[in-house]
Amino acid sequence: MFNKYKIKKTKSILSTKTSISSIGEFGLIEKLKNSISKGPFTKLGPGDDCAVISPQKGEYLISTDTLVEGIHFDNSYMTLQHIGYKSVISNVSDIYAMNGNPLHISVSLGISGKYTVQDIEKLYEGMNIACDKHGIDIIGGDTSSSFSGLVINITVIGVQKSDKIIYRSGAQENDLIVVSGSLGGAYLGLQILLREKKATDTLNNNEEVRNDIRSHMSRHKKLIERQIKPEARQDVISFLRENNIQPSSMIDLSDGLSSDLLHIAKSSKKSVSIYEEKIPISDESLDFCKETSLNPTIISLSGGEDYEMLFTIDPKHADKIIQTPGLSIIGKVKGPKHKNLLHLAGGEEVDLNQMGWDHFKLEE
Amino acid sequence: MFNKYKIKKTKSILSTKTSISSIGEFGLIEKLKNSISKGPFTKLGPGDDCAVISPQKGEYLISTDTLVEGIHFDNSYMTLQHIGYKSVISNVSDIYAMNGNPLHISVSLGISGKYTVQDIEKLYEGMNIACDKHGIDIIGGDTSSSFSGLVINITVIGVQKSDKIIYRSGAQENDLIVVSGSLGGAYLGLQILLREKKATDTLNNNEEVRNDIRSHMSRHKKLIERQIKPEARQDVISFLRENNIQPSSMIDLSDGLSSDLLHIAKSSKKSVSIYEEKIPISDESLDFCKETSLNPTIISLSGGEDYEMLFTIDPKHADKIIQTPGLSIIGKVKGPKHKNLLHLAGGEEVDLNQMGWDHFKLEE
Repeated sequence: MFNKYKIKKTKSILSTKTSISSIGEFGLIEKLKNSISKGPFTKLGPGDDCAVISPQKGEYLISTDTLVEGIHFDNSYMTLQHIGYKSVISNVSDIYAMNGNPLHISVSLGISGKYTVQDIEKLYEGMNIACDKHGIDIIGGDTSSSFSGLVINITVIGVQKSDKIIYRSGAQENDLIVVSGSLGGAYLGLQILLREKKATDTLNNNEEVRNDIRSHMSRHKKLIERQIKPEARQDVISFLRENNIQPSSMIDLSDGLSSDLLHIAKSSKKSVSIYEEKIPISDESLDFCKETSLNPTIISLSGGEDYEMLFTIDPKHADKIIQTPGLSIIGKVKGPKHKNLLHLAGGEEVDLNQMGWDHFKLEE
Repeated sequence: MFNKYKIKKTKSILSTKTSISSIGEFGLIEKLKNSISKGPFTKLGPGDDCAVISPQKGEYLISTDTLVEGIHFDNSYMTLQHIGYKSVISNVSDIYAMNGNPLHISVSLGISGKYTVQDIEKLYEGMNIACDKHGIDIIGGDTSSSFSGLVINITVIGVQKSDKIIYRSGAQENDLIVVSGSLGGAYLGLQILLREKKATDTLNNNEEVRNDIRSHMSRHKKLIERQIKPEARQDVISFLRENNIQPSSMIDLSDGLSSDLLHIAKSSKKSVSIYEEKIPISDESLDFCKETSLNPTIISLSGGEDYEMLFTIDPKHADKIIQTPGLSIIGKVKGPKHKNLLHLAGGEEVDLNQMGWDHFKLEE
């Protein structure tokens, strides 16, 4: 797709591609079965009517997500390994967001005719890397046909003791609002990839433009990685456990800071107040926003898929958090009668509930 | 779609339809949340990063299935309630097939623009009816956009004590092969629906033909019900438990007798021998096959979605099975070195492994 050489290369390996129809659904499952490893908590993996998992102490946490090609991902700018990796990470992140320990995933694929056995093996390669990293087994799943590209559904299963599970609903008045890492990078990474895709689609043979794009992409590698290879913040969960900090509420940032923080506020029947200048934004994001005249605060509030942890803690833990790089106190939980507010650097206040792109633009 | 009156009717209620985009994903989840009931084993249903389920004695059984519009179902001849109902039943059946007790399901939907909030509520109506029938909670799920119609992914979670779980792999030499109910009905029901769909699509204004089809459909109501409203055989599982019959292996018939029996043979490292005249086929199926010159044995072997239970038992239980209406001994498990055989009524033998439609036709 990118240039003649690559097209040729793609063609020359076509002969080693196997169509899924030639080996059938059972054949594909058989192949995939061999590529996955069975961990100590899985009694029976794929191959029967159900998978069987050994009982663990604590309560089970279950989460499920569907990723649809063209809506949640686009394999013109993401490899199948990355898509597989990210599909696991986004699910595992939900288990960490409740302070759980992920153990198993079940994978359902809808596969259209354009995909070969080798493609699906690549997807599984990415999934297996993410699973190894987080100590998870693929316990089963099914494959079926799809009319429109690839549909990936993953259900993740984790465990945690009842009193250690952290809900969205536990935030208390005067708690501090903390966020890990930096925000907005995944969204900016997507913008870079989309721009690159558009340019390569329309300016198909201009090598100079292409080189420009490549140099541009390599400069923004970190942002692109935030989009195509996000991390689930198991390290943040470990840090909190090691320091005996049990957040009163927690959520992972998949929809964007504004939307996810409002989930906590609503579930906890409290209000929240955050400060623009406290929102952590990386230097790469600031540089890119400057270059492209984007507002980094809007991006951080509205851009999703950062998979950072957003949580509330008792103020007694403030010192520990302040001393820890990579964690930022961005605001405070208030009583239920207040508005949910963003305090802008200039002193103005914006109602987070009413904040959309348009509204925010008026405030600028 | 069927006639002028129906088109008019559909239009007249359009005013009460709500587009999903008008209430958004969160709005839709909020609406659906209210329609589902929380059972005693669910600590937290939809609304947080994960659902939380209380621990149960025994091991957990997990199964997942994706149903794609146009591949697994077609809402031109199935209502959304039926689609919802069937999507739960086909999953629950997998839990029963391992002698498990289904407790929870998690539902992921991919929804294209043509569906309204009311449509998804109808789908959930059907799911809720199936859940109530089998004592299951909907613990969560997600909704996302889809380019091609509706994509339904369900993950079902059940429990059973370790020594009560029945695998595909336990069949022993000399065990009897037993099947519940009658076979082939769901496939024939589908043929009737497809024929009706084709006729109503092409002969659009001929009322006489239409009446003919309607009378034909009402005569074959039972077969159509096998397709659009299948049952998961919880009653068979109860019967076996009450009579202390623990099958050595079990599977539910979703792919067809031939394919599913070969799964047992392969997993158990045994061979199987079944008898054509012992395969249970309903009178309705026999009548329809006669009328349409279809071979009822082929239909029973190859037609899927009957969701009957296929299991192997120690011969000491033979008397009890023979006395029980609705259970049929259809053959025997043999050593690993034999062929997997179907003994035809005329005395000939067919290798089940090599049996396709074409091969079988040669034998007729």
